[in-house]
Amino acid sequence: MSDDLVRPEIKGIKEYVPGKTPVKPGVIKLASNENPFGPSPKAIESIARESLKLQIYPDQLSSLLRDALSKILDLPADNFICGNGSDDIMQIIGATYLNPGDEVIISKNTFSLYELIARIFGGKLVFVDLRDFALDLPGIAAAITTKTKIIFLTNPNNPTGSIFTSDQLEAFMKKVPDGVLVVVDEAYGEFVEDKYYPVSLKYVREERDIIVLRTFSKYYGLAGLRVGYGIARKELIAPMLLSKMPFNVSRLGQAGAVAALEDKAFLEKTLKNNSEGRKYLYSEFDKLGLDYKKTESNFIFINLKKSADEFFLKMMADGVILRPLTSFGFPEAVRISIGTPEQNKKLVEALKKVLK
Amino acid sequence: MSDDLVRPEIKGIKEYVPGKTPVKPGVIKLASNENPFGPSPKAIESIARESLKLQIYPDQLSSLLRDALSKILDLPADNFICGNGSDDIMQIIGATYLNPGDEVIISKNTFSLYELIARIFGGKLVFVDLRDFALDLPGIAAAITTKTKIIFLTNPNNPTGSIFTSDQLEAFMKKVPDGVLVVVDEAYGEFVEDKYYPVSLKYVREERDIIVLRTFSKYYGLAGLRVGYGIARKELIAPMLLSKMPFNVSRLGQAGAVAALEDKAFLEKTLKNNSEGRKYLYSEFDKLGLDYKKTESNFIFINLKKSADEFFLKMMADGVILRPLTSFGFPEAVRISIGTPEQNKKLVEALKKVLK
Repeated sequence: MSDDLVRPEIKGIKEYVPGKTPVKPGVIKLASNENPFGPSPKAIESIARESLKLQIYPDQLSSLLRDALSKILDLPADNFICGNGSDDIMQIIGATYLNPGDEVIISKNTFSLYELIARIFGGKLVFVDLRDFALDLPGIAAAITTKTKIIFLTNPNNPTGSIFTSDQLEAFMKKVPDGVLVVVDEAYGEFVEDKYYPVSLKYVREERDIIVLRTFSKYYGLAGLRVGYGIARKELIAPMLLSKMPFNVSRLGQAGAVAALEDKAFLEKTLKNNSEGRKYLYSEFDKLGLDYKKTESNFIFINLKKSADEFFLKMMADGVILRPLTSFGFPEAVRISIGTPEQNKKLVEALKKVLK
Repeated sequence: MSDDLVRPEIKGIKEYVPGKTPVKPGVIKLASNENPFGPSPKAIESIARESLKLQIYPDQLSSLLRDALSKILDLPADNFICGNGSDDIMQIIGATYLNPGDEVIISKNTFSLYELIARIFGGKLVFVDLRDFALDLPGIAAAITTKTKIIFLTNPNNPTGSIFTSDQLEAFMKKVPDGVLVVVDEAYGEFVEDKYYPVSLKYVREERDIIVLRTFSKYYGLAGLRVGYGIARKELIAPMLLSKMPFNVSRLGQAGAVAALEDKAFLEKTLKNNSEGRKYLYSEFDKLGLDYKKTESNFIFINLKKSADEFFLKMMADGVILRPLTSFGFPEAVRISIGTPEQNKKLVEALKKVLK
């Protein structure tokens, strides 16, 4: 038995802190930006049918799902790669493109998976501070060196809910040299209402070194199913298809995702609820005098200016689980997911009590 | 746009060649060692129930599944890690333990995933030939150097169906120094009938540097669901839990696997059918004068001594898909999965026609 087997890069990894799941009945979870209406009903039906064929290996290429995405997004099917959640796609990007020692530029105080991926593949982490709670694209561009290989951008940003605009991305992309891979994580992209949100696929069409990431976890209500996808020019996708695990997306994932894409009634309801929930919560948060950030996503960042961990415990005692942002590096902020009207009201009631 | 972004290790990866899935009705697939009775019925039921909660992220630790495995195998829950198929566990092993340049010992002409994993993490591949169509444990031990980090063993071996015995493993383990990680892939272990098959968990209990891999893909009929697991002393498991993707096993995977573990009627039927199918096929293959290998698994290796690819096409024209072993490095051998009695008869009829 030997105890120094672990790679040095791995020794520095911190445990991923997920949103807490309720154990008591009546407690609502507004912590993980999950769809408050549950999973897409069409996905549930499709999963039931597909479950009868589970003895058979999945299609390696997720062909039906790629074809469906291809039609909806009007790009060839070979511009898509599907994964076991979009974190799987990030892992495949690392495996395919990141050499030990290559620099990876990541924003501070954002989703922690990018750092995990960089560590796993021996990348050198370069952190850039947020600027006014949003990604600092000029700052990120200024951090590019001849050793930069991958830049992770999140749009909308998690956990602050901000976006960068098409003009900002255009200016940024002009400064990114060939050979630097820009990964734009649009996990919450479907919730954006701002008309200046960039059409990142433009750069895929222009055959730039860009990979756009999307997921079925939020908008489609399928976080528990694990399906995400990447979009890029086919020359970037092809080697990723070779380095991924052959059967990375389950049969149920492929079938459920295809069905969810067509579930218009569910998706419309989801967006309408999110839009109305935002306005309601803004108005209630204003009344409560909370310092929150306007969001382009399905969650709202609240700058509490006092211990988030203590606040989290008090709110949980009142039946609402929200996300303290300590693990994101904001020990005095929380993130709440926009729920159903009933959940939002319950949240506001609990906030009133706890803030009193 | 730049085209030399891909890591040099990845450029050498060959495409994974899966068993072909039937497109015409009436064609039977005996190519991928899938359970001929379909998925565990208890798993299907459990998946239907769990699908209603798919908006919620999965439990990061697959706690219920680890607890269930812990009870059945009488080892603490922290000796287990669950993955998106056992190939995910292999990937996590690579991420956690394989430094660039470390040597990885792999047998030639076996399952190709080990090579993919080694390449992804920059390991140096060291191949050892099979000996009489079985793993050559003394040869593998002789290949260990001070740079060896991981040794992959497959027991039973895929595609030859052979096993190494407890005595052979004991002699081998005596030669493996501390700090060399032995990964024993027991994907087909449940089908073994030979009483000399090793209890590899003995070495986990002895706290050796060993990780045993198992899967729900074969015995439990859940290849399309993607659930596998690793068993090792807790000090080896803990860092793997940090370097894995946080939500690597879907909610449906966790729920389906727990239910399948308890599906005694299905599992007994599966083993009985496999045992009877072996005997029937041995007897028929003897009559046909085929050079096959006795198997400890749910598939049989046939040494055709003529082009496997041509034979595959002829058999497919007769309604039976089998696996030509060209991609395994046996261009004149095929692997057939043991089917239901009806499928086995259909196979024999097709063999008679094609071999005539």
